[in-house]
Amino acid sequence: MSDFKILGISGSLRRGSHNTAALRAAAELAPEGVVVTLFEGLRDIPPYDDDLRAGQGYPAAVEAFRHAVREADALLIATPEYNYSIPGVLKNAIDWASRPPEQPFNEKPIAIMGASQGLLGTARAQYDLRKMCVFLNAHPLNKPEVFIAQSGAKVDSEGRLTDEATRGFIAQQLVALRDWSRRLKG
Amino acid sequence: MSDFKILGISGSLRRGSHNTAALRAAAELAPEGVVVTLFEGLRDIPPYDDDLRAGQGYPAAVEAFRHAVREADALLIATPEYNYSIPGVLKNAIDWASRPPEQPFNEKPIAIMGASQGLLGTARAQYDLRKMCVFLNAHPLNKPEVFIAQSGAKVDSEGRLTDEATRGFIAQQLVALRDWSRRLKG
Amino acid sequence: MSDFKILGISGSLRRGSHNTAALRAAAELAPEGVVVTLFEGLRDIPPYDDDLRAGQGYPAAVEAFRHAVREADALLIATPEYNYSIPGVLKNAIDWASRPPEQPFNEKPIAIMGASQGLLGTARAQYDLRKMCVFLNAHPLNKPEVFIAQSGAKVDSEGRLTDEATRGFIAQQLVALRDWSRRLKG
Amino acid sequence: MSDFKILGISGSLRRGSHNTAALRAAAELAPEGVVVTLFEGLRDIPPYDDDLRAGQGYPAAVEAFRHAVREADALLIATPEYNYSIPGVLKNAIDWASRPPEQPFNEKPIAIMGASQGLLGTARAQYDLRKMCVFLNAHPLNKPEVFIAQSGAKVDSEGRLTDEATRGFIAQQLVALRDWSRRLKG
Repeated sequence: MSDFKILGISGSLRRGSHNTAALRAAAELAPEGVVVTLFEGLRDIPPYDDDLRAGQGYPAAVEAFRHAVREADALLIATPEYNYSIPGVLKNAIDWASRPPEQPFNEKPIAIMGASQGLLGTARAQYDLRKMCVFLNAHPLNKPEVFIAQSGAKVDSEGRLTDEATRGFIAQQLVALRDWSRRLKG
Repeated sequence: MSDFKILGISGSLRRGSHNTAALRAAAELAPEGVVVTLFEGLRDIPPYDDDLRAGQGYPAAVEAFRHAVREADALLIATPEYNYSIPGVLKNAIDWASRPPEQPFNEKPIAIMGASQGLLGTARAQYDLRKMCVFLNAHPLNKPEVFIAQSGAKVDSEGRLTDEATRGFIAQQLVALRDWSRRLKG
Repeated sequence: MSDFKILGISGSLRRGSHNTAALRAAAELAPEGVVVTLFEGLRDIPPYDDDLRAGQGYPAAVEAFRHAVREADALLIATPEYNYSIPGVLKNAIDWASRPPEQPFNEKPIAIMGASQGLLGTARAQYDLRKMCVFLNAHPLNKPEVFIAQSGAKVDSEGRLTDEATRGFIAQQLVALRDWSRRLKG
Repeated sequence: MSDFKILGISGSLRRGSHNTAALRAAAELAPEGVVVTLFEGLRDIPPYDDDLRAGQGYPAAVEAFRHAVREADALLIATPEYNYSIPGVLKNAIDWASRPPEQPFNEKPIAIMGASQGLLGTARAQYDLRKMCVFLNAHPLNKPEVFIAQSGAKVDSEGRLTDEATRGFIAQQLVALRDWSRRLKG
């Protein structure tokens, strides 16, 4: 039986991003039979412009993103919170991905997490992302919600998420995402 | 006495954008003493990456955006609705603009409008943008809200917003924005 | 095989409510094997006060609501939009229902619709309700979303929702809700 | 010169409510020339029903609320977070208050705070309330936002909010609300 493939998408491009660190932790914490792979190409996705799509088709970096989403059994999105919502960089990738002919987020199970220095752990951003999932006809996991608050104290100088409680929540979320995906698949 | 300067920002890069058309209409409809100028450089703003800012400072296109926002007396943002929120392209510009040392949206009066083919006229996107304004300490105008629904029937083949009722709402919003700005200034 | 039971909940207490009219239409439009019953007791639910619950237990009207939700296979909520969100009356019922020992909304499939005089058809209220479903661990249906705009022209003087297109959307939503419920059940 | 009158409105009816405790603290912390009075009658406001209003006019408890809001120079709303939004009890009062002939929230400056046991300090509820303010044409204060997280550790057994940092934020918010109100008044 083949592995259950989760695509990890970090909304931050920073090398030292705590959100990317959380996804690396998820890759380590994946249960038996589950593989978490990080999508690395968000940086190369150009600003969404439908004239570009109409004229030349999807840019290669966009096609790569659409392909990676399509191939995944489920998504794990780690979103920073900028200006009380998800980063423009992440939203821009979603804008490209949501266009015809097929829409790769359709019916995709999604888990959402996020890390921030404050107490809210990107909550304000996460509910905006959930609203987008209605349009996308994706299926975000309800529980557990993962809000990584005061993340500066939870990631070491090598970029490793070391906080044990947080690692436990992430591990739980991965199991819940796999189970939710199976349930949706029937 | 100098003109009251409104910077128009369209969240769409498409040449035929109805949101950009609405801003061009606003420029025509501005009352005596009010000038609406469109910001043209959103396309050149790269994906937000704080490592870039830390390493080389703001890219020129970002600096141009920050400067234009800073110099304006007020902003008029015309936002499409993609995936039930504002475009990544617009959000990305805001993400760059909201960073230190000074934050040019601070205390800025803002009017919001939006055009879409559906009946909701970008309402779902507009409230997300209003939430961002809390973080930015900007002051969005409450009324009139401008939802340009079924915009395909309101813009002609030359990209001119011709619908008279909509033009009336835009004219009202410009007056309200000027008055709101004066009131905030004391 | 027993019927699939949908509990209809209207957020309006008005006799002439268009939202209640939409639920009555749903009861007529239910496909073979599906029964839609309207909950009638929202009016009798007192203001939520946890001291009351701690002292005397749930009031009878609350117990009736909790029981009706628990017994239903799925819910169909028709929400007006007041002040850009769901009515306090509906929210108050949910507040009571969400308390221990068991929480009857847990794992419940939910379809959301709403009628308003304006063009937005209660969209602003519906996304707030979807956010509540995350807390409740309920499973709102993504599609079709039912926004009954300009409802005054769609309901006759007897309170019958006569607009054929709207009746079609409601019929589709009922089928989708039944299918979504089956899929979640496995 | 007469005092600046702030009406405090707690969204919780519980005797031991931390939100009501926060408002009592606000009354103690009001700067010279500012008086904070708590509205006590939320419990008596019946479920909103526009047939009732049309038939008999506003119930006395609603009239009292409308009057108190109208007479205040500004409002301070302390909202719990139930089901990720504001309580039905608070929303119901707003629903009654927002109806004709005049709408007492119109042009009212508002500060928002909230206390919860979790880390989010009612953030999810507060942005819903801000969205309602757009409809109401009220003017919520942007900063400081007051999120009283883990409130159980900040209120003593007598119901006194004792946490010094929190008391400091509340004091700052009161000053900011007074200044914002003056600025809006011109």
